[in-house]
Amino acid sequence: MRTLEWVNGKLKIIDQLELPHKLKFLYLKTYQDVVKTIKDMNIRGAPAIGVAAAYGCALAGKNLKKAAKALVDSRPTAVNIYWAVQKMLLFAKEGKDLLQEAHRMAEEDIKINKKMGRYGAKLIRSGMTVLTHCNAGALATVDYGTAVGVIRAAHEQGKKIHVFTSETRPYLQGARLTAWELKQMGVDYHLITDNMVGHFMQRGEIDLVVTGADRVARNGDTANKIGTYSIAVLAKEHKIPFYIAVPFSTIDTSMKSGKGIKIEERAGDELTIIKGKRIAAKGTPVRYPAFDVTPAKYITGYITEKGILNPPFKHG
Amino acid sequence: MRTLEWVNGKLKIIDQLELPHKLKFLYLKTYQDVVKTIKDMNIRGAPAIGVAAAYGCALAGKNLKKAAKALVDSRPTAVNIYWAVQKMLLFAKEGKDLLQEAHRMAEEDIKINKKMGRYGAKLIRSGMTVLTHCNAGALATVDYGTAVGVIRAAHEQGKKIHVFTSETRPYLQGARLTAWELKQMGVDYHLITDNMVGHFMQRGEIDLVVTGADRVARNGDTANKIGTYSIAVLAKEHKIPFYIAVPFSTIDTSMKSGKGIKIEERAGDELTIIKGKRIAAKGTPVRYPAFDVTPAKYITGYITEKGILNPPFKHG
Repeated sequence: MRTLEWVNGKLKIIDQLELPHKLKFLYLKTYQDVVKTIKDMNIRGAPAIGVAAAYGCALAGKNLKKAAKALVDSRPTAVNIYWAVQKMLLFAKEGKDLLQEAHRMAEEDIKINKKMGRYGAKLIRSGMTVLTHCNAGALATVDYGTAVGVIRAAHEQGKKIHVFTSETRPYLQGARLTAWELKQMGVDYHLITDNMVGHFMQRGEIDLVVTGADRVARNGDTANKIGTYSIAVLAKEHKIPFYIAVPFSTIDTSMKSGKGIKIEERAGDELTIIKGKRIAAKGTPVRYPAFDVTPAKYITGYITEKGILNPPFKHG
Repeated sequence: MRTLEWVNGKLKIIDQLELPHKLKFLYLKTYQDVVKTIKDMNIRGAPAIGVAAAYGCALAGKNLKKAAKALVDSRPTAVNIYWAVQKMLLFAKEGKDLLQEAHRMAEEDIKINKKMGRYGAKLIRSGMTVLTHCNAGALATVDYGTAVGVIRAAHEQGKKIHVFTSETRPYLQGARLTAWELKQMGVDYHLITDNMVGHFMQRGEIDLVVTGADRVARNGDTANKIGTYSIAVLAKEHKIPFYIAVPFSTIDTSMKSGKGIKIEERAGDELTIIKGKRIAAKGTPVRYPAFDVTPAKYITGYITEKGILNPPFKHG
């Protein structure tokens, strides 16, 4: 089962807002459908929405230019959408079949993740506890996963590992998606709240941190789900290695440092209402940056399909 | 309106599980009622449950010894219960009227908080943003509050301040209780998730942190709501002062260091079910330490009714 798949002229995606309670699929027929599901977070994860955006371009037909802009604007922090859309615009100029190119990109994504998994798994020894934040698993990609792909590769190699998944407020991707994936894989794991990370590090119960990313600047500064920066600081304080697992397409070599990364701010209701239940009084003022930027100095290394790298990153 | 009050032979408490949606009261007639409401978190906050336990002793009559044990066991991390119960046992020996002594303790709690507020307010200048975690407000005490009491005192002195309240998963005391209190006070504030603290510190948007505590050891190590330690580490990394506001009764001078503090672990359902809605799949394995211990080296100072102190603490 894939996060996104082309079926009978439609893009079939897993509706991630319904997980883990229901496994429901959505069938997207237009580029506007793709834009809407990215904005509403039915589909999320930098590599997954990059490939979804490629299919969005394939669905756009004559409206490719308009579609390209709407897709790029749907989640401004994720560079993969920009990367995928630029590629599709180029393919269109070259007269290539955009649907075939989207298929190729989807297959490539899985291959890349498996390669990253093999490189990353070398960092994990039997008996280790690994912390991951948000969901950088199969659901964040076409299949296999980036940060969770590293865990998966180690698990498939027969290493006995334990995973902490932080719930990742406000959208709870760790509780809803990563926990669900770890269960499917048969990996030993525990769900914790985001604010428990320091405590378990202090007690010596976390050996390694690995997360995904939405955009990495040339100097290694990394935008990822809100909460990543706090974890990176805590890891440094406790001398725990902190790795980012990203396909090379998430590295934005045109961006000098993290200062240039635009942080998406989202609506407060996503924070004060959980599954239809209000957890704070109506009208409570809220701040909700969806991402944060972790400076490169907190990051031990970058697990990519080209190996475990360190900045500065060069194009190609 | 007080968090707890003696009315017609019953202990009337605000049911904090219903806030901020409903302002509902519970009327406790027996010491068992007091034990149950402490365990179930209808009433919480170290000073508040200390005084509630004193009333529990007054309600116990001939069962004082049994009541004393049940009350102390109801929340093992909070030293205030132990402190209050020991006092009541002593008063009983001396033949004093326990109800009158509980009343006295309640009045004393308010006086102490106001004193702490005056000392703490000196640390706050107009224009500052203060972060507080969990709820150490009027609802955590008989009235006025400890950490939020400091904010309140600064606000009453006419200082223009802005407050971040972290929601405090899993029980959401920040979102439900502190946000509600700040609104009543008319203080400018924003609610954030726990994992945003590092981001706002990095952006220079937090000037001071002040939280309450459940138990402070002689050397200054402090047990408080889970998440406090992570915030303290982040504050140190960003060179932001981090204060604990506690009545002297929360300082356990019989305990050498934080290593001796017992951390209560609670049931996982409190983490995976929010207001009756399941946020993770059924059977998801969970770790849930309700408190963590912040070593003294991360704490800038301790705001008490005797002034702003530093360890080691001496009795009396």
